[in-house]
Amino acid sequence: MIDLFSDTKSRPSEAMRRFMMRAEVGDEQKDEDPTVRTLCERVADMLGKESAVYLPSGTMCNEISLAVHCRPGEEVICDRSSHIIHYEAGGPAALSGVMIRTVDGHNGIFNAEQLGAAIRPESRYAPRSRLVCVEQTANLAGGRIWPLETIREVMTVARQAGLSGHLDGARLLNAVAATRVAARSYAEPFDSAWIDLTKGLGAPVGAVLAGSRDFIREAWRLKQMWGGAMRQAGIIAAAGVYALDHNVNRLVDDHDNAQRLARGLAQMDGIGLDPADVETNMVFFDVAGTGLTAAEIVAVARERGVLIGAFGPSTIRAVTHIDVSEADVDVALQVLGGIVEDAGRIGTKKLAAAHS
Amino acid sequence: MIDLFSDTKSRPSEAMRRFMMRAEVGDEQKDEDPTVRTLCERVADMLGKESAVYLPSGTMCNEISLAVHCRPGEEVICDRSSHIIHYEAGGPAALSGVMIRTVDGHNGIFNAEQLGAAIRPESRYAPRSRLVCVEQTANLAGGRIWPLETIREVMTVARQAGLSGHLDGARLLNAVAATRVAARSYAEPFDSAWIDLTKGLGAPVGAVLAGSRDFIREAWRLKQMWGGAMRQAGIIAAAGVYALDHNVNRLVDDHDNAQRLARGLAQMDGIGLDPADVETNMVFFDVAGTGLTAAEIVAVARERGVLIGAFGPSTIRAVTHIDVSEADVDVALQVLGGIVEDAGRIGTKKLAAAHS
Amino acid sequence: MIDLFSDTKSRPSEAMRRFMMRAEVGDEQKDEDPTVRTLCERVADMLGKESAVYLPSGTMCNEISLAVHCRPGEEVICDRSSHIIHYEAGGPAALSGVMIRTVDGHNGIFNAEQLGAAIRPESRYAPRSRLVCVEQTANLAGGRIWPLETIREVMTVARQAGLSGHLDGARLLNAVAATRVAARSYAEPFDSAWIDLTKGLGAPVGAVLAGSRDFIREAWRLKQMWGGAMRQAGIIAAAGVYALDHNVNRLVDDHDNAQRLARGLAQMDGIGLDPADVETNMVFFDVAGTGLTAAEIVAVARERGVLIGAFGPSTIRAVTHIDVSEADVDVALQVLGGIVEDAGRIGTKKLAAAHS
Amino acid sequence: MIDLFSDTKSRPSEAMRRFMMRAEVGDEQKDEDPTVRTLCERVADMLGKESAVYLPSGTMCNEISLAVHCRPGEEVICDRSSHIIHYEAGGPAALSGVMIRTVDGHNGIFNAEQLGAAIRPESRYAPRSRLVCVEQTANLAGGRIWPLETIREVMTVARQAGLSGHLDGARLLNAVAATRVAARSYAEPFDSAWIDLTKGLGAPVGAVLAGSRDFIREAWRLKQMWGGAMRQAGIIAAAGVYALDHNVNRLVDDHDNAQRLARGLAQMDGIGLDPADVETNMVFFDVAGTGLTAAEIVAVARERGVLIGAFGPSTIRAVTHIDVSEADVDVALQVLGGIVEDAGRIGTKKLAAAHS
Repeated sequence: MIDLFSDTKSRPSEAMRRFMMRAEVGDEQKDEDPTVRTLCERVADMLGKESAVYLPSGTMCNEISLAVHCRPGEEVICDRSSHIIHYEAGGPAALSGVMIRTVDGHNGIFNAEQLGAAIRPESRYAPRSRLVCVEQTANLAGGRIWPLETIREVMTVARQAGLSGHLDGARLLNAVAATRVAARSYAEPFDSAWIDLTKGLGAPVGAVLAGSRDFIREAWRLKQMWGGAMRQAGIIAAAGVYALDHNVNRLVDDHDNAQRLARGLAQMDGIGLDPADVETNMVFFDVAGTGLTAAEIVAVARERGVLIGAFGPSTIRAVTHIDVSEADVDVALQVLGGIVEDAGRIGTKKLAAAHS
Repeated sequence: MIDLFSDTKSRPSEAMRRFMMRAEVGDEQKDEDPTVRTLCERVADMLGKESAVYLPSGTMCNEISLAVHCRPGEEVICDRSSHIIHYEAGGPAALSGVMIRTVDGHNGIFNAEQLGAAIRPESRYAPRSRLVCVEQTANLAGGRIWPLETIREVMTVARQAGLSGHLDGARLLNAVAATRVAARSYAEPFDSAWIDLTKGLGAPVGAVLAGSRDFIREAWRLKQMWGGAMRQAGIIAAAGVYALDHNVNRLVDDHDNAQRLARGLAQMDGIGLDPADVETNMVFFDVAGTGLTAAEIVAVARERGVLIGAFGPSTIRAVTHIDVSEADVDVALQVLGGIVEDAGRIGTKKLAAAHS
Repeated sequence: MIDLFSDTKSRPSEAMRRFMMRAEVGDEQKDEDPTVRTLCERVADMLGKESAVYLPSGTMCNEISLAVHCRPGEEVICDRSSHIIHYEAGGPAALSGVMIRTVDGHNGIFNAEQLGAAIRPESRYAPRSRLVCVEQTANLAGGRIWPLETIREVMTVARQAGLSGHLDGARLLNAVAATRVAARSYAEPFDSAWIDLTKGLGAPVGAVLAGSRDFIREAWRLKQMWGGAMRQAGIIAAAGVYALDHNVNRLVDDHDNAQRLARGLAQMDGIGLDPADVETNMVFFDVAGTGLTAAEIVAVARERGVLIGAFGPSTIRAVTHIDVSEADVDVALQVLGGIVEDAGRIGTKKLAAAHS
Repeated sequence: MIDLFSDTKSRPSEAMRRFMMRAEVGDEQKDEDPTVRTLCERVADMLGKESAVYLPSGTMCNEISLAVHCRPGEEVICDRSSHIIHYEAGGPAALSGVMIRTVDGHNGIFNAEQLGAAIRPESRYAPRSRLVCVEQTANLAGGRIWPLETIREVMTVARQAGLSGHLDGARLLNAVAATRVAARSYAEPFDSAWIDLTKGLGAPVGAVLAGSRDFIREAWRLKQMWGGAMRQAGIIAAAGVYALDHNVNRLVDDHDNAQRLARGLAQMDGIGLDPADVETNMVFFDVAGTGLTAAEIVAVARERGVLIGAFGPSTIRAVTHIDVSEADVDVALQVLGGIVEDAGRIGTKKLAAAHS
């Protein structure tokens, strides 16, 4: 099975597992785990922040950041496609009591003027504007990269209005790989930022959140409260250390594979897609022209050994990652091309029925 | 001063005050206040619900309803212009932990298809869709009336998906006055509904929230918790009883006055407005054509004895209510006409400067 | 009916009602209500604070104060008999996310050493100690008065540990009447303090919360969010103004009446009570010796025209207030004496059965 | 260094690590991780529940359970020494909005009568009683075991009042090892229960929460929301599987070692302790009679190679676990005996000073 459903499906390699097995560990709640300490120091340094904390997931990085930056009734401004809105089960309201104010960005990216219009003047009636969130890369918008200049302009407006900034860096290192801009440059305008160790980096568990020493001290309280504090966590943190050493530079391969996939798809009849829109490892394409729905194509492809995901009635997402090779991409193209062809040949109704 | 800023500015009349003075009272927390009981029974009956509770404000009616209907992490669907988003200080997230999912309605009114698209399928990741809120009339959208048929269609879709419905009836009785549709017909599709006793009805304090007996029992717990439980509240509830007896039918006068104002404004150079858009007591108009900003016109009008409000760079809102007579409208038209004229005659810069 | 159930049962007098009816009013949400402004200024001055806000109830004063002083996960320290624990429907946790740490005070009053032992050292694991609450007088403990010296010592320890202080002044003016210590002296060590206008003061609705300008600005946001913001609230605030002018000094009469009641009860067979424990307007007494339960005595007394409350299997509370005269106390004593006598004469079983 | 500070300090053995390294994994958020599935099925079966969910910590098991069982403003009843009060950073209030009502149990264990007295009658004013929590074993009370009969009586009273029950099983398997009562028997009266895989079981990370299918479905939503959802978690869940296979029966060795330690300590001059109070792996002892404070003894012992913890001015806790052998206990006894002797010989002041 070639798994293009998501880069979250990547699995720890044998070498990574061996490295984990040898990890020195201790009780991380008492700061006694040397591997966790090493990992946090490396990520803090990479992101140019004073301190960092290891957490079981990127969602916890986001949600703890909202809770530290905001008080109940305050408002977080972000693009309407943001992960915190659609994939964190209502956490911003439930855990921090914050309202979300959405901006209709372009490809998940909004500009300083849009932010300015979204910031509310102080009033007894309105939620208080408090935090700007940027998601790099913008996942649901196609893995698009926030230009450094846009980030800086946006955060300048935020600062002028007294707002803080948070960088959801689930795929920040994909942006770094694609642009050669340093991670710390992207993170610099923000008060908090994090990277994921799973996804493209291939570790099985965990993410690291960085910020000022004060910020991390408060984040630790919430890590403890929410149950994110573990014990001999070095055993999994080791996978993160390994990933930072071995799996960062290779993210460009995922982007090359995504390009290869995009160019192949663009040549198929009935598939709508501009390869220039594929900036990192996400390939979104429209299948309306095939006569099949996205769900139908996904189902048939699964039977033929390729996992992809439906993100709308006629929209499909395919994601490249560490466990997908160039050869896998070629197989996937063959499978998808075959489906499109079959739809033309035996008819979309029959094809869909055969696999329903 | 002619106060067209908002119908919230209406003041209790002498007759209303005299009625309040004679009110029988008791400790409402122990259900011992006969006037509060009478008021609640009348509103429950008017809205066709089993029971009702008297609260200090309409905001508390909305926020308590969200808290009773929803659990933290669930999602409320409403138009993006809703009062609960912009005028309740972040209460939905802070008090109930709910996310808001906005629909881009037309004039504050969305349809069943839009609702259907906003309801999320069940998933571990997404906030759980739980409640639909309708604001009748749609205040920020210009006091527009939700057609009964639209309400029914929307709530049919909501029911099919297992969602509950809440009617923000801050100005429900304006819709009733304009359409002759009964309040209970508008309220019927919803689990909870409320009317305000201030605004057009002229009482100084209070609103009444109605629903099933179970719903009201839970609402009472929150009334107590949030500090909305008062003592001898009959003294103010009496104003509500008086208002129901004397001030409901006269809401049509406010609508006539709003029409008179709208038609007058429509004839002025540089004022943009279609009187057909004025369905109740709200008159929104655009002043871009005058060369003056909304804020400038508001400031000059205030000096000349007319209070109106700026709701955007070139948008002004004027609201008619019990304390605004037909003659007041004519004076207001004269004042506003004079400002537009002066702007043309002595120049917008000078006029603005003279009043800054 | 002589209502000794609670001082919350007091009703507005004719003179108070006349004063209310003549009140000047405006929209208090826009600070345009002159009567509300007057009331707030007077209470801020009385309590020695910069600013004040009018709220529909004392519960809202308490709960808003917790929410302004604390962040979720922090801890409030108070006596285990406190109103915020037992009578506010779980508000501290639900509205502010705060934990309560109880101290086992004596008569509702704890000392500096007990507070010191309750304050937690900073730790990732423990709730963070944040606020001390004092209830003056201590209602459930019998209306007992916190000595000024104890308050000062307690708040000195609190300050040293970086905690803030809040004074629940539901019956602060009873303490003032009993001790001649100024209200501002009691309030001085605290960051926030409030007085109730209902209860002994006889107004039908409302309480006033005072603190620094910053504190009150945040309190106003929550007043708006929770729905405590009203419109022409001057009409009820006027009752507060009237009460401050006419009903403060007479609280000593309530205390005299409570003493009269206590001394009378102490002479009855089977009633346990030391009149020296009655410091203000609360009379708690034990009825175990009568052979009747508290609930039985309450039921019989009600039939004979006297309302009192059961606060335990054998504990009864009677409260004097503005609507209870010396003569009423004598009648109440006669009724209660009669019940005790009947219990002895016709037997407790028969007496209880006759009224069940 | 002999680490008796806590059983949380236990480290994964070589054999456990090897087992982890071979674990089959998948994306646990999509239920595609076979090792996580196996672990959950085994714990659900062990606890006699329909379903189970793997979580990063026992704290998350507790806090998610509160959030699923309760709504904001409701009340949880537990012993005043409970972990959820003192070691979860205020989570019950911050995450679930619940109040805590403490019972003054004996050795952390309360009875049915005490529970009955703590359950509140329904009222608008009071928090609503909703959930009983039992901690087996009672950690801060000395690792004491709740008798099965007491649990059943307590939960019978809870059921009669409509309350749910939650079992904090951080050290449930220690109780099982000590009493030979099956884990499912202890768990049976409760709606939710969990076991920890770290502590005595020696896994580095994780705990498993079990309950009905409905309960676990809601728990999964919160796992996702709070960021407890991981990816290829099988790599750490494998340690749990290994621990269930190899480390459960050996918990009796920890208890034997704790007894050995207790009996040795009981013979030292100045040490207060009754070995009969040591029911599992926790040894609390009083050092007042030595002339040294707990903190002083802890500091000297650390220098001499033994880690123990101060739990009060003169109270020390020592905990046995998988990484502490019988020989280690003997060394620890020698070290502690030496300190007590030195205190007598060279004087407590000198001894303390030499190590401060």
